[in-house]
Amino acid sequence: MAHDKYAVIISNFGNRSDRFLSGYGEDRTLTQLFAAAQKTAGLSGVELVGTWHITERNVAEVGRLLRDHNLQLVSIIPDHFATQVYGRGAFTSKDTQVRARAVADTKAMMDAAAELGCDLVSVWNGQDGYDYPFQADYIQERDWLVDGLRECARHRSDVRLSLEYKMKEPRTHCYLGTVAGTLLVAQEVGLPHVGVTVDIGHALLAYEDVAESIAILSRAGNKLFHMHLNDNYRLWDDDMIVGSVHTIEYLEILYWLDRVGYDGYLSLDQYPYREQPEEAIAESIAWLRALRRVVDRLGSDRITEVIRRGNAAEAQRLVRTAMLG
Amino acid sequence: MAHDKYAVIISNFGNRSDRFLSGYGEDRTLTQLFAAAQKTAGLSGVELVGTWHITERNVAEVGRLLRDHNLQLVSIIPDHFATQVYGRGAFTSKDTQVRARAVADTKAMMDAAAELGCDLVSVWNGQDGYDYPFQADYIQERDWLVDGLRECARHRSDVRLSLEYKMKEPRTHCYLGTVAGTLLVAQEVGLPHVGVTVDIGHALLAYEDVAESIAILSRAGNKLFHMHLNDNYRLWDDDMIVGSVHTIEYLEILYWLDRVGYDGYLSLDQYPYREQPEEAIAESIAWLRALRRVVDRLGSDRITEVIRRGNAAEAQRLVRTAMLG
Amino acid sequence: MAHDKYAVIISNFGNRSDRFLSGYGEDRTLTQLFAAAQKTAGLSGVELVGTWHITERNVAEVGRLLRDHNLQLVSIIPDHFATQVYGRGAFTSKDTQVRARAVADTKAMMDAAAELGCDLVSVWNGQDGYDYPFQADYIQERDWLVDGLRECARHRSDVRLSLEYKMKEPRTHCYLGTVAGTLLVAQEVGLPHVGVTVDIGHALLAYEDVAESIAILSRAGNKLFHMHLNDNYRLWDDDMIVGSVHTIEYLEILYWLDRVGYDGYLSLDQYPYREQPEEAIAESIAWLRALRRVVDRLGSDRITEVIRRGNAAEAQRLVRTAMLG
Amino acid sequence: MAHDKYAVIISNFGNRSDRFLSGYGEDRTLTQLFAAAQKTAGLSGVELVGTWHITERNVAEVGRLLRDHNLQLVSIIPDHFATQVYGRGAFTSKDTQVRARAVADTKAMMDAAAELGCDLVSVWNGQDGYDYPFQADYIQERDWLVDGLRECARHRSDVRLSLEYKMKEPRTHCYLGTVAGTLLVAQEVGLPHVGVTVDIGHALLAYEDVAESIAILSRAGNKLFHMHLNDNYRLWDDDMIVGSVHTIEYLEILYWLDRVGYDGYLSLDQYPYREQPEEAIAESIAWLRALRRVVDRLGSDRITEVIRRGNAAEAQRLVRTAMLG
Repeated sequence: MAHDKYAVIISNFGNRSDRFLSGYGEDRTLTQLFAAAQKTAGLSGVELVGTWHITERNVAEVGRLLRDHNLQLVSIIPDHFATQVYGRGAFTSKDTQVRARAVADTKAMMDAAAELGCDLVSVWNGQDGYDYPFQADYIQERDWLVDGLRECARHRSDVRLSLEYKMKEPRTHCYLGTVAGTLLVAQEVGLPHVGVTVDIGHALLAYEDVAESIAILSRAGNKLFHMHLNDNYRLWDDDMIVGSVHTIEYLEILYWLDRVGYDGYLSLDQYPYREQPEEAIAESIAWLRALRRVVDRLGSDRITEVIRRGNAAEAQRLVRTAMLG
Repeated sequence: MAHDKYAVIISNFGNRSDRFLSGYGEDRTLTQLFAAAQKTAGLSGVELVGTWHITERNVAEVGRLLRDHNLQLVSIIPDHFATQVYGRGAFTSKDTQVRARAVADTKAMMDAAAELGCDLVSVWNGQDGYDYPFQADYIQERDWLVDGLRECARHRSDVRLSLEYKMKEPRTHCYLGTVAGTLLVAQEVGLPHVGVTVDIGHALLAYEDVAESIAILSRAGNKLFHMHLNDNYRLWDDDMIVGSVHTIEYLEILYWLDRVGYDGYLSLDQYPYREQPEEAIAESIAWLRALRRVVDRLGSDRITEVIRRGNAAEAQRLVRTAMLG
Repeated sequence: MAHDKYAVIISNFGNRSDRFLSGYGEDRTLTQLFAAAQKTAGLSGVELVGTWHITERNVAEVGRLLRDHNLQLVSIIPDHFATQVYGRGAFTSKDTQVRARAVADTKAMMDAAAELGCDLVSVWNGQDGYDYPFQADYIQERDWLVDGLRECARHRSDVRLSLEYKMKEPRTHCYLGTVAGTLLVAQEVGLPHVGVTVDIGHALLAYEDVAESIAILSRAGNKLFHMHLNDNYRLWDDDMIVGSVHTIEYLEILYWLDRVGYDGYLSLDQYPYREQPEEAIAESIAWLRALRRVVDRLGSDRITEVIRRGNAAEAQRLVRTAMLG
Repeated sequence: MAHDKYAVIISNFGNRSDRFLSGYGEDRTLTQLFAAAQKTAGLSGVELVGTWHITERNVAEVGRLLRDHNLQLVSIIPDHFATQVYGRGAFTSKDTQVRARAVADTKAMMDAAAELGCDLVSVWNGQDGYDYPFQADYIQERDWLVDGLRECARHRSDVRLSLEYKMKEPRTHCYLGTVAGTLLVAQEVGLPHVGVTVDIGHALLAYEDVAESIAILSRAGNKLFHMHLNDNYRLWDDDMIVGSVHTIEYLEILYWLDRVGYDGYLSLDQYPYREQPEEAIAESIAWLRALRRVVDRLGSDRITEVIRRGNAAEAQRLVRTAMLG
């Protein structure tokens, strides 16, 4: 399968904090993070986060680390969320200079990606949104958002911009919140190399059937650019081990990724607060491979037939017997 | 204010049932429903539901009832949800004949609306969706949905089609679920007289800030065609009295309706299971008028200034003092 | 395994309606419902609902039907939710006479149960609650609830009263909403034959880990009296086929049922709106048996060891390999 | 009104971080925090958090700060959540030594409270819970929880232990999650000076009607020991300004606090990530005072009458006219 390629946001191997506790584990250097990724069976790619792992100044060093550890750079995620200057918004900050910096930082990360042989920048602008009623001019800020993203996209067309959505956190309401809302913005930006990243946990949090979200993006002209994988209890971005809560829906996701011909990486985005990170990542890959075998056993044609009939009991029988005999 | 015009879906005055209890109140004839609407202070319009209140055969009678009770027909809602034939989908039924019938029924209601001097049909196709994983071919059914709606819209351009969204119920997942998802479909249909109905409870259920949803539709070329009003606890379509749970957010909604120049009706869509319907409707209108006075007292300019600064404490102070001194 | 005994609420085989559509399928007589239950492989018990299936007047007929179809009566659910008189509450109705009737109806169903050789009445008083703020005197109504249930329990000690909880629907807030809230009420009633029914969908809806709920009840002096099974998307009582959404959590539930020595029935409580009921019920039993084999394969001791270590990755590896190799 | 006494958890004035951004504002020393509290009109009390503000070693200094700033110590919250040793649980840690330390730390904070003339320790053991299925022995850990709390309570009876509940965060599931679940634990501990803290945001997150939660605790023998105030969108502990989302429900809460004779502090517990903290706290107090005037205007007797009739439209009319004329 084209999409049996696994990556990880490299910070998954590092320390984890929440708003109460500033370190569940230990800090690790960038080299240690790369070493952890290299040792994890099945991983062939990494994603890096601006500020945390990559800046305009360490591109050459990152290039060396990638080569030394035999890892592909899958995407760069510019930092629009972890630096105080963006605490009240990046592309939609009420401060013109902050908005300009968000655009500049994104362009810099596009250049860094290109230099490192990577054609994807995944934009997660989680601070663009609002917390309270009567706190934002939704029309004005939406204009800023679209204009800023378009300016980034025009910077160069050999690096794709993929917009990652999440309904909330860190803001109580984020502008890019749902698959459709993000596709709307991508369409308004109006350039072919702008698309959407589906984070499975974020989609679940928005009460999306993730497989439908994948289908919607594909049908809109191949707008599914990238996938982040994890699991949760559907009400918050718990960033858990893949498959630890949802089994059937993961099978449906894998079938639809095949169906729409997705050939990108399956990139893990977890927060193993209290787990040993290498174990948590390895377990996610093991789940994905085990679930993939179930889908392969069934075969796309048989599944397609069953979903077209739409008999829920028949569909359940199909997946149950494929999984459990 | 242009939008100080109140309407009601006339079934609000009738009997209410849920899946356990088939009648909390008493059945009423169509004439009794009109009489109840007429007696309710503040109401000047009604919405009618296909099958329940209006069919191709009683158009003349409905015309008489409207005139006799001095009520405006605000919209017709074709029945795509309450007849067994649509139990497994209307525009996206797996049965070609059912899909054709959904289109035909909609056209018939467009004709009826035109005949009665009404230029709006509000489509709520709540059975179009799915309940289980592996139960729908999301691409195929989306094609059917867009094609069916386009065929309806082409039938005549003097009656606007407004698509009402709701994330779930009666299906666990409905295709038109969010403001952005519905706008996407309206844009794909590609005709100027196709827009969106915002039901406030449905928007809350999707974790939307309703005011932002209004802004998004307006910004996309005046696509806010119609409003349904009620309240809920944010997790289900409880269809409660307006203002009974959300106060601040209703103020924000009224400000944004002014801001985008909405001049349609504010149409109540409640399910007063255990209330006396006339009282429940009258109380909603009383809330809306009281909240409108607060917004008017503040004035649009002052609110706009405050939201542009984005200081939550200042915004709270503004609404608190306007409401409570 | 003691708990490999399956039952069903017999209305699962009948017609299904929601608040929009009054019949997704066809009406069936009581005899037809029994015939459907008898034909379903694996079923050996049924639950009956007051008013719908059993009243003081047809006890003998029900006895014949049970014998003729070789089915055990597992429990009776008195009707506190489907008759207009209870539309504004049963045990907590503001009307003294309604409260008295709720008690009388429950006693009558206890007598009927005893006459039919059944020692369990499962009380689901879903109308006891409130919809709006400022609508209930929470202290007064709680007194009524406890007093009414105590009066029922004192009627006879050879029939156990099991209280079924559900956070909402049909009220926006029901008094018996969570496992702990219901255990509190059972403890306040203060009689050994009063306990709790866990409906898995209701527990999921309350963001409970169902296995923990089972453990809490068991630990409190064997207060887990009965189980209702179905599945949902965690935010509403969707009453879907068992296992159609949650797999891992069902495994955890089965382990804990063993662990606490539950030896009652696993009774299905679904609403197969758009499914063929016999198929939907059979599929649930097939899922439960397949999941049971996984738990048996692992063995209680191995699971207990792993949960005591609390390593999430190890626990996932355990269930993954047991399920998928 | 007895409960027109306002306090704050003093860290509300300090820096705020989330899992992405380690500081939205600036760090402040303890003295600066006290100065900020002193300057805030209406505040007469503070709560302190173990480790962050108070330890066994700085009790005398804290005493001086309290006197110098003329502030009452309302409670101490022992740190069971912000130190790495408690990252996998405090009272229910799988490590005996950690459990012992949780008890010892609590006793030390009880002693510190007594020394400072404060009779309340509010225990928020948010790390006691689990994240994944198959990760906890719910019976064993519940025993540890009850035993540990009982050992603390037995340490001295002149300092009350108040258990604060929250369904999730930092764990995906916390043992003390709901009002009833926490009351159950308090009852099992079995000592009169053990009760419950209601955090309004936590109660909303659990889909509780907060007023009902207050009534339940009061009815169970005056078990409402303490109140934390803030607001949210009902699905997460957003810790927003009081009244910024919920208005009617805050009125209901104030009525019930009167009704049950609560005479403790109303203590603010916010996370003003992007607000100026002094402004955010002052605005909450201003809201509470304005809402209190509405309740006073109505008078307890009139409200009690209306809630006993249970007519939702009448109740809405009452609060609407009291608020908006």
